[in-house]
Amino acid sequence: MIDQIPAVAQLLKQLQHVPYLATKNLYRVAHYFLTADVRKIDQFCTALQALRDCLDTCQMCCCFKEKAQPCSLCSSPKRNQRIICVVETWQDLLAIEKAGGYTGVYHVLNGVLNPLEGIGAEDLTIQRLLARITSDAGIAEIILALNQTPEGEATAAYIAMLLRDGPSLLISCLARGVPVGSYLESMDRLTVYKAVNERRPF
Amino acid sequence: MIDQIPAVAQLLKQLQHVPYLATKNLYRVAHYFLTADVRKIDQFCTALQALRDCLDTCQMCCCFKEKAQPCSLCSSPKRNQRIICVVETWQDLLAIEKAGGYTGVYHVLNGVLNPLEGIGAEDLTIQRLLARITSDAGIAEIILALNQTPEGEATAAYIAMLLRDGPSLLISCLARGVPVGSYLESMDRLTVYKAVNERRPF
Repeated sequence: MIDQIPAVAQLLKQLQHVPYLATKNLYRVAHYFLTADVRKIDQFCTALQALRDCLDTCQMCCCFKEKAQPCSLCSSPKRNQRIICVVETWQDLLAIEKAGGYTGVYHVLNGVLNPLEGIGAEDLTIQRLLARITSDAGIAEIILALNQTPEGEATAAYIAMLLRDGPSLLISCLARGVPVGSYLESMDRLTVYKAVNERRPF
Repeated sequence: MIDQIPAVAQLLKQLQHVPYLATKNLYRVAHYFLTADVRKIDQFCTALQALRDCLDTCQMCCCFKEKAQPCSLCSSPKRNQRIICVVETWQDLLAIEKAGGYTGVYHVLNGVLNPLEGIGAEDLTIQRLLARITSDAGIAEIILALNQTPEGEATAAYIAMLLRDGPSLLISCLARGVPVGSYLESMDRLTVYKAVNERRPF
């Protein structure tokens, strides 16, 4: 059978390592590569292998940046260096950037505390965040923009606890409540509870 | 921003060509490659690039086969060479093989007739199927196992019409009706209609 041909079996094995390819889609994605022409596959591989040569981590915000180039966000004169928004991943950073309106800088944690998966504080960039705050007296606000998962909230609480010992700062978090365009009756109870309790002046 | 770094933009562009990666998952898949170690990326690229060296198309069933090896299905002495099951894709072939119970051989059309997308009979392997039937007087049955889409049914009708002029053969199609484990009340009307009209002795 076709999935026992070594080259195909190896392709399927490699694709299975890639997250978010369900079993159904696995074959569809495999079909794309099985029928793609040689030039397309080479372009794909070149793009993957270029990552190691062209990408670096910004020492400041811990997000990816172009090698031998300053980080476009941390070095931008248009960004307010006094506000740091702490996010879990670069995807969350992009979501905030795409929403527009935020002009401060970021700090990417590269994950959240997760004892069950063995992810502790030393696996995240929390120490670098503290060093950044201690070394720059100009920083005025830290926004803890972590996701509202048990792990995200525990990580936010842990960082807030560490910051309490440091210089005096405004620590904030994202507004919680009913998303734009949705109906109250279709919301879960906890969201409604928070929307009512954290209500604001009209 | 990170999605404007050339290496990342190129990765995203390449990933966007791969079907079944929705926008949400695009970033998650990109994250996998951005954080995967060099060895993993090399393994992935090796697997992709090995396809061209190791894969070939079986001249008989038109499915993929190992280069310089006979097709494992067409050359198997355990398979009944007198029954040919015609399927749209190798994924459909796998679905039938995984279900077990079918011991004949296959013919992969590599698609269906689709005038709107400019796919005609010459883009499929219909001519090779006819040549196969004409050259082998031993073939007794053709199962048209195409999907129940307008294009699949039109392709099945077209093949059945061509076969009518050839040697006398049993032409069959898959049973249609209520899937195992499902409820009548949740079925669409056409399925129920077909299940009733094509009922069989208990």
